[in-house]
Formats: sequence, C-alpha cells, structure tokens
Amino acid sequence: MFALGIEEIGSYIPHGRISNYSRKEKFGITDQFIEEKIGVQEVSIKEATEETSDLCVRAYQNLRIKIDLSPDDIEVVIVVTQNPDFNIPHVSAMLHGSLGFKSSCACFDISLGCSGYVYALSIIQSFMHANGLKKGLLFTADPYSKIIDKEDKNTSLLFGDGAAVTLISDKPLYTTGKFTFGTMGKDYDDLICRNKKLHMNGRSVFNFTAKVLPDDIHKVLKINGTEISKIDKFVFHQGSKFIVDTLTKRIGLPPEKVVFNAKSFGNTVSSSIPIILEKEIHEKQNRLMVISGFGVGLSWSSAVIKRA
Amino acid sequence: MFALGIEEIGSYIPHGRISNYSRKEKFGITDQFIEEKIGVQEVSIKEATEETSDLCVRAYQNLRIKIDLSPDDIEVVIVVTQNPDFNIPHVSAMLHGSLGFKSSCACFDISLGCSGYVYALSIIQSFMHANGLKKGLLFTADPYSKIIDKEDKNTSLLFGDGAAVTLISDKPLYTTGKFTFGTMGKDYDDLICRNKKLHMNGRSVFNFTAKVLPDDIHKVLKINGTEISKIDKFVFHQGSKFIVDTLTKRIGLPPEKVVFNAKSFGNTVSSSIPIILEKEIHEKQNRLMVISGFGVGLSWSSAVIKRA
Repeated sequence: MFALGIEEIGSYIPHGRISNYSRKEKFGITDQFIEEKIGVQEVSIKEATEETSDLCVRAYQNLRIKIDLSPDDIEVVIVVTQNPDFNIPHVSAMLHGSLGFKSSCACFDISLGCSGYVYALSIIQSFMHANGLKKGLLFTADPYSKIIDKEDKNTSLLFGDGAAVTLISDKPLYTTGKFTFGTMGKDYDDLICRNKKLHMNGRSVFNFTAKVLPDDIHKVLKINGTEISKIDKFVFHQGSKFIVDTLTKRIGLPPEKVVFNAKSFGNTVSSSIPIILEKEIHEKQNRLMVISGFGVGLSWSSAVIKRA
Repeated sequence: MFALGIEEIGSYIPHGRISNYSRKEKFGITDQFIEEKIGVQEVSIKEATEETSDLCVRAYQNLRIKIDLSPDDIEVVIVVTQNPDFNIPHVSAMLHGSLGFKSSCACFDISLGCSGYVYALSIIQSFMHANGLKKGLLFTADPYSKIIDKEDKNTSLLFGDGAAVTLISDKPLYTTGKFTFGTMGKDYDDLICRNKKLHMNGRSVFNFTAKVLPDDIHKVLKINGTEISKIDKFVFHQGSKFIVDTLTKRIGLPPEKVVFNAKSFGNTVSSSIPIILEKEIHEKQNRLMVISGFGVGLSWSSAVIKRA
C-alpha cells in the first residue's frame, strides 16, 4: 500500500470586495464588532458572470504555476460544493471537459458545506486507496454570494467567495491520521437555502460549535495518540473570529498556535481550511497540525495531519 | 481487514402513475414505440408534497421490514441525488435528524445521476474501510418529476420516481470486485437541468452509451479475471429498453442473462440498479453479477459483484 496525502494546494480568491466598514450605519455595527467579533473587514465577491466551475479553473491554474502537472495524470476529481453551476450535471464533470482530463478519470461532487474539506480529504484518499489511484484533485468552491441577501446582516458581513484545489498524490508533503465525523441533523434548518436565499441562525450555529467542537478536538487528539502540546498549528474553519477565539479558549489552546486569516475576504465555506493550509504546509516548523471543519448539516469533521 | 459488502436492499416506488398509452396521440407515438423502443408503459410519479428525503424514509422503512436494524448501529449515511430537498443542507443530514441516527454518524451527499449507484458503492465501502466502520446506508433518490416538463417527449415518457437504500455491512451477501469509472465531460450539456427544467439530447446520450459501454464491460470483466460465460446476470442502468437491448447485442450477451424491469415505473436514475438488485441478490443461482451505470456527466461506472 502506497501512502497518499496532500502534495500541494492552489487557491483563488476573486479580487472584488465589499467593505464591512462601508455598511456600519446600514447594519448598526461598530469597528469593534467588525474587528473583534466577526474579524472580517471585507468580503470577497466574484464577478456576476463567474460561475462555481470558473472559480475552480482559476484555483487549478494557480496550482499549476506551483507544480508540474499533466491533465493526463489525474485519475479522480472531486468538487465539494452546495452551489454548483447546475444541479445536473455535477461540477466535476464540467471541469473534466474544460480542463481536458482523461476518459478513465472518475468525477463526482460532494454536497457538504464548511465541514466539507476535512470530510472530503478522507473520502478522496479512501477512494484512491481502494481503487489504486495515485493522483487526484480535491476542489472546494461554494460562492455564497450567489445566494446571500445583501440586506441580511447575519450572512452578508461574513461570507466571502473563494475556491481551492488540493493535489492528493503518492508523493505527499502531509499525510492524514485518523478522522472524526459527526452530524446533528435535527438542527438542519439552522443553515438552509430556501428559494435561492441563505438563512442562518447564527446564534444557534455558534452555540452548536462551541458545545460540540471542544470535545471533538480532544477526541481527535486522543485517537491519534497525541496531545495539544505536540500540535504545531490548529486550523479551524474560519466561521468568524469570535468562534475561533471561543474554541481557542474553551479547548485551552495557546493563541499563537491558532490561525485566523479571514480578515480581508471572509468565511469561504469549504475553502477556508485549504486556503490556510496552502501556506502552512510550507512552514517547516509545522510537523503536526489539527484541521477541523464545522457547519451546514449541522456537521463536523476533524483530523490530524503530519509532515511526511 | 473485515470484508464489507451489500447485506440487504430496500426500495420505494410511489404508487402514482402516468400511462404512456394515454399520451400516444399527444406525442405521436405507437404501441410498438412504447413496448419495444422505450419499454416503459407507465412512469411512477411521487405526490407533489413528497420530497426527496421522504422517498428515502419510505425506502428505509421497507428495508427495516426485512432486517433488524437499530438507528444506533448506523455509522455513515450517503445520499446520491441531484434533486435534493434543498441545495443547503444535504439530504443525508435531514435523514440523520428524522431517522434518529447517532451524533458520530458521518453524513454526506454525492452528486451523480444514473452512474451514481455503482460509483457510490465504491465510495461508501472505501470510506468505511478507511475509517473502520461496519454499518452504513447508501440511499439513492432522484425524483426527476420535480424537473421534468410534461410536454417534453424526450424525458417525460422515460423517467420515473423511486428511491432505494442499500445496507453495507461486514455481514455481506455480496462483495464487490474491482470497479471501472469514466467521464466524458466535454458533453456535459447532453443531460442538463437549466432553470429547473431537465433537457436531454437523447440521441447523443444513446450514442455515447452504445459506443463507450461495450468496451467498459469487457474491461471490467478482464480486470476481475472473469468472462461473460461466468457471469450469471448483467444489471445495466435502465435507460430504456432500446439501450439495454443494444448493449446486449453489441457486447454479445445471452439475452436471458440481462435484466429489464422498468416497464411499469420507468428509468429511476440512480435507483434503477438497486431496485433490480433488491430481488436478484436473493436468487441463489446468481453467484456473479455485473452492474453498470451510465448517464449524467457524461459518466459511467461498472463493477463485478460476487455472492459472499
């Protein structure tokens, strides 16, 4: 059995921005709310004509700047999204056509939100192991600007558009340990898209995360035979600065080990973790990291990743 | 490593029907077209109030009539659909809530169409192996009546509503061998849902299948070290009687080994194969079967399954 893992990551964040400072009066919010509570000063917005598959193509182009990759090498393509170009077909099939992958390349999409990257790392690696595949692409792209009501304070100040693509291969920079997964489906309507509009019960999603995630982080450390002091970085989904700070306190983490990078583009849903990892996997001092996603479903997933 | 496979299957086909004979004049079609070409005499139609998740619940209830199963035993739930109740959240999370699965149960949806069941058999088993899980549920439910224009001859005579759930466990009745997967993404718009309406270029999808699938069946036999004479049943996706007959001839299969069962409910998309298997896995003479799905993407996947 060959070892699979993360070889490289590319990402794309559209240039468009909406400043949250420009909406202070409209929403009755303060600088302190922007800087300390949500931690998002501006959100990234794609062009109206840019589709989910276009964001993926841009992330792929950025990956190929960093690494030599032939479309013929790719044996599986997964796209994690809940905002596909069309419901039929899947986005991965569209990418297969536009990026010229080979006919034996397996393609499917996964419907998950903010927990999707961690889940999908397990899904793609499992699938590749079982089918003897050595190179695969895991895309995340969930441009919430397609479904956000700009008048909705609960969502429009937080979510930004972005995409990422992770090359999984048998020449990994990082391998994954054991995963945790979880679902609290009875609260599925805390984050829901009805009639093309996103609705979020922010307080409820926050309370769920603050309650469930600390135990989950202790669990993922334990099943991987490790502990907080041995972990170099904790990479949480970037729901808001307040939720990342709350988890840091409740779990008892040294703040310098916890990343928050969403200040200038917002919560990019399933792309939040790979956008951070794109940089962190190249920091030599990071030998062991915890990654943890949570949100839509409600759902969560955590894993320990290790420098190969 | 424990062996995983198909333990049991439950399905649900709504009682509602639209007769294709009643539409002969409207669409200018003959009895021969209905009986020999499409092979679908009536299509199943869900109640307008029945949602995708409701079809899944009914399939699950039918599974539980056959097998003793506690919700607490289920460790992963996958729903294959491109017609979810909502785009956010995933249907599997809604089922998690309504069926009362435990909080550590992993849930995600897969976006694939007619090839989805075969793909997802590999995905769920791979995921379960990698994460040490012993009981999982694979749902398929893609009620095309939600997106079919009843005036569209290309689609409204063919597609029927239905759902299935396959229990994957470490007490399998059938295990799977090696899989093939494929994608022809450049033709993604041959089967597409725009503005909530399904559009199909039937001729193009037919030609793709008739061209690609025979080679794929030979390939899946070869990589599993078997041959046509050793296979007891060939279970193709039920696109139409004409495509199943065409594959039978082009591959050179004995017609008695090929199943066509869509006469009284139509093409149920990703549920077509498990609806057939529900019966065939209990026929003692079936030791080795080939299953093969093809459609949206365009995409295909085939596998050999073996009595455990």
